Amino acid sequence: MDISTYIRSIAADAKDASYKIANANTNIKNKALIEIAKLLLDNKQSLIDANKIDMENAKNKGLEAAMLDRLQLTEKTVDSMAEGLLQIASLPDPVGEMDDFAFRPSGIQVGKMRVPLGVVGIIYESRPNVTADAAALCLKSGNACILRGGSEAINSNLAIAKLIYQGLKHAGLPENAVRLVEQTDRAGVGEMLKLSEYIDVIVPRGGKSLVKRISEEARVPVIKHLDGICHVFIDESADIDKAIAIAINAKTSRYGTCNTMETLLVHQNIATNVLPILADKYCEKGVELRACERALPIIKDKAIPATEEDWYTEYLAPILSIRIVDDLQQAIEHINHYGSHHTDSIVSENYSNTQQFLRQVDSASVMVNASTRFADGFEYGLGAEIGISTDKIHARGPVGLEGLTGQKWIVFGSGQIRG
Amino acid sequence: MDISTYIRSIAADAKDASYKIANANTNIKNKALIEIAKLLLDNKQSLIDANKIDMENAKNKGLEAAMLDRLQLTEKTVDSMAEGLLQIASLPDPVGEMDDFAFRPSGIQVGKMRVPLGVVGIIYESRPNVTADAAALCLKSGNACILRGGSEAINSNLAIAKLIYQGLKHAGLPENAVRLVEQTDRAGVGEMLKLSEYIDVIVPRGGKSLVKRISEEARVPVIKHLDGICHVFIDESADIDKAIAIAINAKTSRYGTCNTMETLLVHQNIATNVLPILADKYCEKGVELRACERALPIIKDKAIPATEEDWYTEYLAPILSIRIVDDLQQAIEHINHYGSHHTDSIVSENYSNTQQFLRQVDSASVMVNASTRFADGFEYGLGAEIGISTDKIHARGPVGLEGLTGQKWIVFGSGQIRG
Repeated sequence: MDISTYIRSIAADAKDASYKIANANTNIKNKALIEIAKLLLDNKQSLIDANKIDMENAKNKGLEAAMLDRLQLTEKTVDSMAEGLLQIASLPDPVGEMDDFAFRPSGIQVGKMRVPLGVVGIIYESRPNVTADAAALCLKSGNACILRGGSEAINSNLAIAKLIYQGLKHAGLPENAVRLVEQTDRAGVGEMLKLSEYIDVIVPRGGKSLVKRISEEARVPVIKHLDGICHVFIDESADIDKAIAIAINAKTSRYGTCNTMETLLVHQNIATNVLPILADKYCEKGVELRACERALPIIKDKAIPATEEDWYTEYLAPILSIRIVDDLQQAIEHINHYGSHHTDSIVSENYSNTQQFLRQVDSASVMVNASTRFADGFEYGLGAEIGISTDKIHARGPVGLEGLTGQKWIVFGSGQIRG
Repeated sequence: MDISTYIRSIAADAKDASYKIANANTNIKNKALIEIAKLLLDNKQSLIDANKIDMENAKNKGLEAAMLDRLQLTEKTVDSMAEGLLQIASLPDPVGEMDDFAFRPSGIQVGKMRVPLGVVGIIYESRPNVTADAAALCLKSGNACILRGGSEAINSNLAIAKLIYQGLKHAGLPENAVRLVEQTDRAGVGEMLKLSEYIDVIVPRGGKSLVKRISEEARVPVIKHLDGICHVFIDESADIDKAIAIAINAKTSRYGTCNTMETLLVHQNIATNVLPILADKYCEKGVELRACERALPIIKDKAIPATEEDWYTEYLAPILSIRIVDDLQQAIEHINHYGSHHTDSIVSENYSNTQQFLRQVDSASVMVNASTRFADGFEYGLGAEIGISTDKIHARGPVGLEGLTGQKWIVFGSGQIRG
C-alpha cells in the first residue's frame, strides 16, 4: 500500500471510530485510561527494551544529545506516563455539558452542548511519552486520534500503542479510536495535512521548523504555537521585591520552555533601582544580558548591546534582552510588536496600569504580578495540556480537554415553525 | 501601486487600527454605529444613485437577474441597513467580559477575558448591504475589518464606505478600522488569503464556489460554511401534526436558504401515516419529490426515484429527497454521512431517542421538534450574524458578535513565582 492510500485508510478508520468514542460514557473512557496506565507499568521492561533499539539506531545515526535525551524511556518516564493517564482519568469529562439555554420569542429554547472535535492528528518528534499523553487527552475528550511520531521513536511508539489498543479493547472501545502511523515516510505528514474530510484538527508538537512547515502546508485547522517570546514589564510603581523575584524566576527557573521570559522591559523611573540588583543575580546564574542603549550605562560591565534582532528572538537559553521604556504605553507597544502573543506579565502596584496592560496586551496569557512560567495547563488547572496555542481563534494559551472540544447549538422545540 | 503592495498596505493599516478599536469603549463604538445609520438615511438618494451606475454596468455585462437583484439598493434596503446598524448598537458588548476566575494552589487567580480577534477580512460578492452589516458587526466586537466586495458593486460600496469612515471619525475612532478594498482585481483576494501576519480571520460570504476557493487557498483561518444539506427525521413516535407542520415549514418557507431541509427521513413505522399527507402538501406547493425505493410505492404518482447523488445534494430549490429508514440509528448515520453538519432536526415524542439524536448528530445545530429554518443568528438571539459556520473549531453555527471574539487567559498574582 502506498503511503497516501495508507494514511487515507487510517484516517477513514479513525473517523469511523470517532463517532463511537464521541458517545462513549465517562466511566468507559476512564476504564480504558486506567487499564492503559496499568499495562504501561506491567510492561515497563518491554517498553524500555523497545526503546533501546530506537536509542541504538539514533546513536548510530549520530543524533545529538538533546534529541537522545528526549527519545529515552526510563523507569521514571514510564511511571510518569502512567501517572499522567490516571490524572486524565480523574479529570471531569467535558463532553455533553450543556449551558446557556434561553427561551426565544418564537418559543424555542436555544443553548449549547460541548462535543468532541472528531479526529485529532498529532504530529510530533522524538518524545515517545507524547504517544500516551496525547492519546489519553483525545480519548478523555471523546476524540479519535492519529499519532504520527518521529521515525526515530517508532519502536517505542509501537510498543506503547500496542498497550493503548489493549486498553481500549478491555473497555469495549474501538481500537481505531487511537491510530499510530506505522509507516513514517515524510510524505505521510503531507498527506495528513490535506485530509480535511477525515481529520478535524492537527496539533503539531515539536521544534519551530516542524510547526512552521505544518502550519504553512495544512489544509486542516491547526492548533499551534510557533514562538514563546515572553515579556515581564517592571512598571514605575512595582514592588521591588516582587519585581526581582518574578524577573529572576521568569528567566532562570528553566531556560528551554516556551513560557520563559526572553525580554525584560523596565520603566525608566525604576530602572536604576532594579537593574543593578537584577544584573548581579543574572550574572551569578550565568545569564548573558543584552541591553538597550539606555540600560547599558546602568549595568555596563554585565551586559552587551542588544540589536534590533534581539527583540524578536526566542533564545531558549541563558540569554536575556533588556530594554528601558518611557512608560506603560511604550511597553505595551513593544510587546504587541516584537512579542509572539504567548505570555506577558506586568509587575505593578498601580490599579489603572494593570487594567490597561490586561486589556491591551494581545497575548494568550496576560498576567499581573506573577511569573510568566505559570502559563501551563497544570498551573491553570486544566489537569494536562496537549499544547499551547498562540492562535487567536478557537483555543488560546494552554489547550486541555476543553480545547479539544467545541460547542454545537441545541434547540428544544415543541412543534415550532418559522413564520 | 501593484495589487500586492496595495493589499499589504491596507492590511497593515487595519492591523494598526485594530489595537485602537479593540480598546474603544462601548459608548464610543455605539456612537459611531448610530452616526453611520443616520448618515445612511440622510444620504439615501446618493447611495441609490451610486448603485444605479453599478446596476447599469451589470446589465450591460449581461449579469443574470438573481445577481442584479442582490446588487440593487432601494429605499427599503437602505432603511434596513440603517436599522441593522441600530440593532447592533443595542446589543451588549462582548469585549472585556471576564469569567471563570479561580484560585490555584500556587496562589495565582486564573480566568479568561473576551477579546476581539483583531483584523477580520470579509470577502463577498454583489450584495452592497454586506458592506454596512459586516463593518458594524466587526466594529461592535472591537475588530478592524477589510471589506473586499465584488467588483460589480464597487460604486455602491465606495458610497457606503465613505459614510462609514465619516461615522468612525465622528466618534473619534480611527478610519482605518474599516477598510474597503478599492482595487478589486481578482489577485487581491489571493493576496488577502496569505496575509496571516495582518489578518486574523477571513469570512467568505457568497456562493459555494467562492467559499470553496477561499477555504482551499487561505493561509489564514476561515469561518465558513460550504453547504446546507439539512435533514428532518420523523421518528416512529412523532406527533403527526408537529411532524407535518415542521416538514412543510422546513422545506417550503424559503427554498434558497442554507437552513432549508433538503432531505426528509421517515421512520418505517410511521411512513404510511405521514408520507401521503406530506406528498399532497408538497405537490400543492410545486415541490418535486425524489424518493427512495421504499418510499416510492407510498407516494407513487407524486415522486420520482432518488439517486445516491440526491442524498449529497443541496438543491436550494423546490426539490426534496425522501428516504425511509429502519430506525433512529440509521437516520443518524445517514445524516452524519450525507449531511453537511449544518442543521438537523428530529420530530419525536420519545425522550431517549431525542437525547440520542442530540448527542450523536454531528452538526452545528441539532433540534428537537422545531423547524431547521430556526438556525439563524436572529432566531438564536445573537442579534445579528456575520455568517454560519459548519466548521468544528472556534465558532459553530450562526456567528454573531461573540464568534468574532476569542478568550485570553488572565492571571492575577501577588508576586508568585513558580517552584
